[in-house]
Amino acid sequence: MASKSFYAVVAGVGAGTGRSVALRFARAYPVVLLARNSESYADIVAEIRQQGGEALGISTDTADPQSVASAFETIKKEFAAGRKLAAAIYNVGAGFAIKPFLEVSASDLDASLASNARGLFNFAQATLPSLLDAVPTSPHPPSLIITGATASVRGSARFGTFAAGKFAVRALGQSLAREFGPRGVHVAHVIVDGVIDIPRTKGYTVNEGKEDGKISPDAIAESYWHLHTQHRSSFTQELDLRPYVEKF
Amino acid sequence: MASKSFYAVVAGVGAGTGRSVALRFARAYPVVLLARNSESYADIVAEIRQQGGEALGISTDTADPQSVASAFETIKKEFAAGRKLAAAIYNVGAGFAIKPFLEVSASDLDASLASNARGLFNFAQATLPSLLDAVPTSPHPPSLIITGATASVRGSARFGTFAAGKFAVRALGQSLAREFGPRGVHVAHVIVDGVIDIPRTKGYTVNEGKEDGKISPDAIAESYWHLHTQHRSSFTQELDLRPYVEKF
Amino acid sequence: MASKSFYAVVAGVGAGTGRSVALRFARAYPVVLLARNSESYADIVAEIRQQGGEALGISTDTADPQSVASAFETIKKEFAAGRKLAAAIYNVGAGFAIKPFLEVSASDLDASLASNARGLFNFAQATLPSLLDAVPTSPHPPSLIITGATASVRGSARFGTFAAGKFAVRALGQSLAREFGPRGVHVAHVIVDGVIDIPRTKGYTVNEGKEDGKISPDAIAESYWHLHTQHRSSFTQELDLRPYVEKF
Amino acid sequence: MASKSFYAVVAGVGAGTGRSVALRFARAYPVVLLARNSESYADIVAEIRQQGGEALGISTDTADPQSVASAFETIKKEFAAGRKLAAAIYNVGAGFAIKPFLEVSASDLDASLASNARGLFNFAQATLPSLLDAVPTSPHPPSLIITGATASVRGSARFGTFAAGKFAVRALGQSLAREFGPRGVHVAHVIVDGVIDIPRTKGYTVNEGKEDGKISPDAIAESYWHLHTQHRSSFTQELDLRPYVEKF
Repeated sequence: MASKSFYAVVAGVGAGTGRSVALRFARAYPVVLLARNSESYADIVAEIRQQGGEALGISTDTADPQSVASAFETIKKEFAAGRKLAAAIYNVGAGFAIKPFLEVSASDLDASLASNARGLFNFAQATLPSLLDAVPTSPHPPSLIITGATASVRGSARFGTFAAGKFAVRALGQSLAREFGPRGVHVAHVIVDGVIDIPRTKGYTVNEGKEDGKISPDAIAESYWHLHTQHRSSFTQELDLRPYVEKF
Repeated sequence: MASKSFYAVVAGVGAGTGRSVALRFARAYPVVLLARNSESYADIVAEIRQQGGEALGISTDTADPQSVASAFETIKKEFAAGRKLAAAIYNVGAGFAIKPFLEVSASDLDASLASNARGLFNFAQATLPSLLDAVPTSPHPPSLIITGATASVRGSARFGTFAAGKFAVRALGQSLAREFGPRGVHVAHVIVDGVIDIPRTKGYTVNEGKEDGKISPDAIAESYWHLHTQHRSSFTQELDLRPYVEKF
Repeated sequence: MASKSFYAVVAGVGAGTGRSVALRFARAYPVVLLARNSESYADIVAEIRQQGGEALGISTDTADPQSVASAFETIKKEFAAGRKLAAAIYNVGAGFAIKPFLEVSASDLDASLASNARGLFNFAQATLPSLLDAVPTSPHPPSLIITGATASVRGSARFGTFAAGKFAVRALGQSLAREFGPRGVHVAHVIVDGVIDIPRTKGYTVNEGKEDGKISPDAIAESYWHLHTQHRSSFTQELDLRPYVEKF
Repeated sequence: MASKSFYAVVAGVGAGTGRSVALRFARAYPVVLLARNSESYADIVAEIRQQGGEALGISTDTADPQSVASAFETIKKEFAAGRKLAAAIYNVGAGFAIKPFLEVSASDLDASLASNARGLFNFAQATLPSLLDAVPTSPHPPSLIITGATASVRGSARFGTFAAGKFAVRALGQSLAREFGPRGVHVAHVIVDGVIDIPRTKGYTVNEGKEDGKISPDAIAESYWHLHTQHRSSFTQELDLRPYVEKF
């Protein structure tokens, strides 16, 4: 049963995890979807509305503080009246470059740091005051859930700039968990260790093409929902998700 | 809705996590409860039956291969006919001694290694063939879920022998996850990082006595259930659980 | 005995680790010292020369690619003729801010990412070709040694932006080790976990004021030298350094 | 220059790391060599004596407390008069079995736990009082150095029982470092991540047969010596060692 007194915001909505998370949380809350381009969220907003949910899409570049400020201004005016923020999901992460280090450019590094670290920074600063505000009344502990990757815990050869951004995100997430956990906000970091099964990866052969060898984004969304609904005496700060056949 | 074609077995049932996990899984499956002494499980078996569930308690010392063999012989004869094993939870862990190292005895170390590492070893050898057998038909991926502790990832001063047992358990769990994951069995390890709220800890003041400063065993059980129901494309190998106010 | 055919470069020279490392490596190689301001290296350059060593100081902002390019242009012209690069040490790390997250500004984050991640990126791109070039003839495997901190592996409350930069550096370091190790360059990351005993920290009481409760920068330098002289069949990628009385 | 007032003891002496460590420490101290069979140490004792060093070999099963007690009784009577213990190295580690988990026997697990965890336990209890006693006068902080392996930090498929023992050793080592570090004893754990170049591995092709693709035990010994000579303001608790060409 959806609560109308609370809402969720998902940053980094596209065809994969973002979409599934938005749909999953929309079963409980009105949802704001942020993505750089409206094509990324338009269909999902429509899908949520069709299922009787409430949704708003806003074109936002989370790496840009002005753009984030403007998005949350819009949310405040058009969406958040009488509502508190129950969940904020940060699922942005461009800057994926696999190159020999001596061929990487400074702009590859900047793209990774901006979309990962700076984006989370802006998003967390915009949402944490609202999440704190929801602590006393929220049905579940207000949550900031962050999508990580294999590169969050491992700097592989030729993945340096991408890993730099992902490690930085994990650092911020840990720090926020330690500062805001005691104030009632649940900050969790999820290491997605595998290829996600989305339109863009349809042609990829991973794990020898075995069934369910790519991660179902709906399954990811279920774990995010579980994190959100954990009792405050039993918060998970970090979990990993990978296909049963993935080497690790 | 409980399935009668599958069952679960919980080793290390007492007043805390074991009880909550048994009750949680009993909502879905008939459950076998293992503990060294029947007082540890008798009330819980009764409670499950009262709620319309099915339960069997067997006095078992998981550190003793004969005792484990005998328990599973009993299960086979009295409980498992026409059923497959959907979930096995290893929640045993005695050997908790906090002492200056030069005052610890070899038997402290042995107690920790036996109840943790050898117990899991025996339990895993007894359950994995049955879990594998359930893979093709189980509603959720058959699961082996293992309870860990802070000492699973940190050897604190004066916790050496306890940590030795807990590290060893984590090693086994990782190894089993890598061997049996690709065969469809979900092996997960849970780091319980805090004091659990059970009768024995009622008098403890932790986290300055703050509300929910001890971990609710029911909350732990919810996370175990979530692990069990994860889609095989998205298994968690390890997660941590701690109170929102816990220092870490 | 100092080799004149090879040289070392130390970035981030000040009164602490940088100075000790420069002095230690100057016993074996001519050394280039990089720091933003000439006051940071002038005395050390003089000290090295006084001891019969060879040294050159260059004012450089490692976060700025132009500044790094210009520094290495100067090195090439004034210092590196007939010499190969045996060791490059990255010891830069500003951006240390301890603040509640909601009081941190984007420029705090940027300062940390720039001086840590981007600085290492620029420095590594400038030095790795030279280090590779030295592989066949260098008396010890050419080395890139990176100074880390507690915040490289732990995002503490209110240390988020600093940790973001330090985690990012560690990611880059791991990735470089995996890419350039097999080509003969030793990339190592050192977690300095404690307060360093330098003029600026004289007044700090740490570890209850116990003797040697702050890290001797000369001791750090000895470990860097050990890393540099490790045989290529036995490279250390990461080690920690902390006072015997430090809590960890 | 060898000190006659201090001695070292190396447990687990064979043709590899133990031999090199014994020879390296024998350049500074009289050395006791422990191994189960005298063939393992006889030649090395002779070699040390030939080089003008002092050495004593004692057949000892470190997993057996009686055997350890008897060895240290012998040391006390025949070797340690007027001397203090400067360094104790634990390099034992049998129990290496690679098997599918369902084919492993309880005795495989026991062998790993005994030779790794229990052996270190016995050895640490026998040596720590002597190491503490040497703190005020030892030229370098008295040291307990422990040999680990890849399996100390990773439970690979089919390596479960071996990893259980190695994880347990690491737990004990961490705990001892935290308890005895503040009292002046340096406890360090070394992750040897690769195949060691010893007679037994001559035929192994690793890292595509590349030169120096196996770890030189002499190089390992140099790092142990470095650990032993670290200043107490700058102790390393853990480092890894692997060939430059090793995948990790």
